[in-house]
Amino acid sequence: MAVNLEPPRPQDLLAIPGVRLGIARAGIRKPDRKDLLLIALDEGSRVAGVFTRNRFAAAPVIVCREHLEGRDPIRAIVVNTGVANAGTGKAGVEAARATCATAASLLDLESSQVLPLSTGVIMEALPVERIQAGLPACVADLSPDNWASAAEAIMTTDTLPKAVSRRVVIDGRPVTVTGISKGAGMIQPNMATMLGIIATDAAVGPDALAYLAGLSASRSFNAITVDGDTSTNDTYLLVATGKAGNPLIVGEGTAEFGKLQDAIVEVAQWLAQAIVRDGEGATKFITIVVEGGESARECLCVAKAIAHSPLVKTAFFASDPNLGRILAAIGNAGIDDLDPSRIGLSLGGVTVVEGGARAASYTEAQGQRAMKDAQIEVRVTLGRGVETATVWTCDLSYDYVKINADYRS
Amino acid sequence: MAVNLEPPRPQDLLAIPGVRLGIARAGIRKPDRKDLLLIALDEGSRVAGVFTRNRFAAAPVIVCREHLEGRDPIRAIVVNTGVANAGTGKAGVEAARATCATAASLLDLESSQVLPLSTGVIMEALPVERIQAGLPACVADLSPDNWASAAEAIMTTDTLPKAVSRRVVIDGRPVTVTGISKGAGMIQPNMATMLGIIATDAAVGPDALAYLAGLSASRSFNAITVDGDTSTNDTYLLVATGKAGNPLIVGEGTAEFGKLQDAIVEVAQWLAQAIVRDGEGATKFITIVVEGGESARECLCVAKAIAHSPLVKTAFFASDPNLGRILAAIGNAGIDDLDPSRIGLSLGGVTVVEGGARAASYTEAQGQRAMKDAQIEVRVTLGRGVETATVWTCDLSYDYVKINADYRS
Repeated sequence: MAVNLEPPRPQDLLAIPGVRLGIARAGIRKPDRKDLLLIALDEGSRVAGVFTRNRFAAAPVIVCREHLEGRDPIRAIVVNTGVANAGTGKAGVEAARATCATAASLLDLESSQVLPLSTGVIMEALPVERIQAGLPACVADLSPDNWASAAEAIMTTDTLPKAVSRRVVIDGRPVTVTGISKGAGMIQPNMATMLGIIATDAAVGPDALAYLAGLSASRSFNAITVDGDTSTNDTYLLVATGKAGNPLIVGEGTAEFGKLQDAIVEVAQWLAQAIVRDGEGATKFITIVVEGGESARECLCVAKAIAHSPLVKTAFFASDPNLGRILAAIGNAGIDDLDPSRIGLSLGGVTVVEGGARAASYTEAQGQRAMKDAQIEVRVTLGRGVETATVWTCDLSYDYVKINADYRS
Repeated sequence: MAVNLEPPRPQDLLAIPGVRLGIARAGIRKPDRKDLLLIALDEGSRVAGVFTRNRFAAAPVIVCREHLEGRDPIRAIVVNTGVANAGTGKAGVEAARATCATAASLLDLESSQVLPLSTGVIMEALPVERIQAGLPACVADLSPDNWASAAEAIMTTDTLPKAVSRRVVIDGRPVTVTGISKGAGMIQPNMATMLGIIATDAAVGPDALAYLAGLSASRSFNAITVDGDTSTNDTYLLVATGKAGNPLIVGEGTAEFGKLQDAIVEVAQWLAQAIVRDGEGATKFITIVVEGGESARECLCVAKAIAHSPLVKTAFFASDPNLGRILAAIGNAGIDDLDPSRIGLSLGGVTVVEGGARAASYTEAQGQRAMKDAQIEVRVTLGRGVETATVWTCDLSYDYVKINADYRS
């Protein structure tokens, strides 16, 4: 069902020196599936995080923020699927802390050196005993070569695991970036219901790492939307182990920083786009480019208004060039002084709208051809300035409703 | 399919002295269906209007605003279904003007005394010749008793016509309010893809009428949402013919004004709720009440965030008490300083969340029972203040996707 997405081949995923991954079947919600992941980081590793802006942040997000702000370096990450531990109040925070404590004692760390991540059903109690019981199996399984299995262990309604690697040479030394992500519904910028973990062996200073985490999130996980629902649990962690032996990268503006940034953004975009390609019920992968705005922010508002419109999304599902729905969405984007007579719209390279009205050259047959592709680019010009924004989304199909109507059953 | 909605019985719809309605089958988009409505208003009538805030306002909306701002009293309304005349640029405005001109010449009026309303497919040219050819049949059909037929003539994907009447006594004189509406998709506050026309024979001054139009819209048509898409064509007209013989109602604060206001709001709410009951694919009618906000505006944001969440809507469709999705939606409503630990949630009278977490008394069985009803009330308390807001919406079903994927075919 996923749009132009293949499962990763384990041999394509490159190990990151300093990162070991262990997977277990802990029976958290369903029996006999990989549902628990432990990532152990060597001493000297640094971690930066970007989290959901949902005010109902889940307990693990609260604990992650706390531990990242603390003094102790992060040395382990525990991810469970099945139960999100959100809407669970104080008991949920206790459960997340108990998870950290068990992982810490198994790895001889402090609790505050462990980050807990959860995904799954909201408002159900975390079965913390099952997680605690499963963690020793994760420890026994720890290996640098477990990235493909780790990608499987964090899936919920995902139909495919999502993982990718890139290698660049920095200061004459090979540097590797490998990441995994999950998410298929409750997906919208800031962030998706998504967990994303990217690790590199590059040596990066703490400020540079935080900057890279924010920048790569804004160009990837925060530029995708499936259904406009921002999850309570979204977490993106960027890990740098420093094992590559390159001179420490401390700030913007150097060629080395640029190379690492490009590699991280590329991995983050691949992982984010994979979430859209595997969006619940998705049959189309849609890139929305908005140009000619006064600000990047207003371009993003227009792109999101299009990407969130159920009418636009169902038209894509039907391959129906009912493109007036895109104009209506543009008009709903909240730009008060928008001049409709300056709007242009093209679809897969076909000019549809010029000067705010149907282009004289446009024929229904052209629109129908463009709508049939599995990957479609929508390009909007606002005629107000020079800023741009890009958002990736998918269509809205019967299967989206089916998946979400059946999710818990 | 509509939720607890019956078609109006013609004998229940009360004529409004000074208002005559004529219907024709003009073959605008499909053959042999009522698709053209002419409403003729006697001399002395007043009209106030509330229109879409979509920046891509359709040509008829542009012309309506122009004619309402002009000096000539409005004496006729022409409504066509099939083609929305939106995204049609200058040619669309010309087409709307041509419609007005023909109606005016048939009724011996000026063009500027006619309001054009259109609904249907966007970005297709209005077949103005068919409208012009159909208008004489409308004139021949003019009668005060045609409200039921008028409600049919403005339908698009509606499964049922929507019309209602109320009668009140003001200053000892019976005053009647009758209205019709249409709309089933592309529906969200400000306003729905909806056309609503309410007429009364009360004598009302122009400022009071404009106030009543705005107030009744905010409590009805602007408090409903089906899919969060605001149409290009939304129009609500409030007509007062002055034939009831009551002393002129000129402002707020009198008992007479209050009575008329109540009757108009009641009719407007009935018509707006009918649109939700007949929402595309709707199987549930959901009332969302948000209380304890610092402002009505933030309560409305929370109510809309819940009402627009595809995950919440699909859970209602499935009768699945996956109520954490409502918490996630509350967290996404954009209230930066929201304290999750003060949130309460009940569903059909069952307490689900207290203090931001699952209530100790709550059982899944209670939730399942509440979710099975066709009409469900969601009540959220924010614990921040005393303001409230109410929004009406429906669920998201397979049929919503089907209807919108097939709409043009």
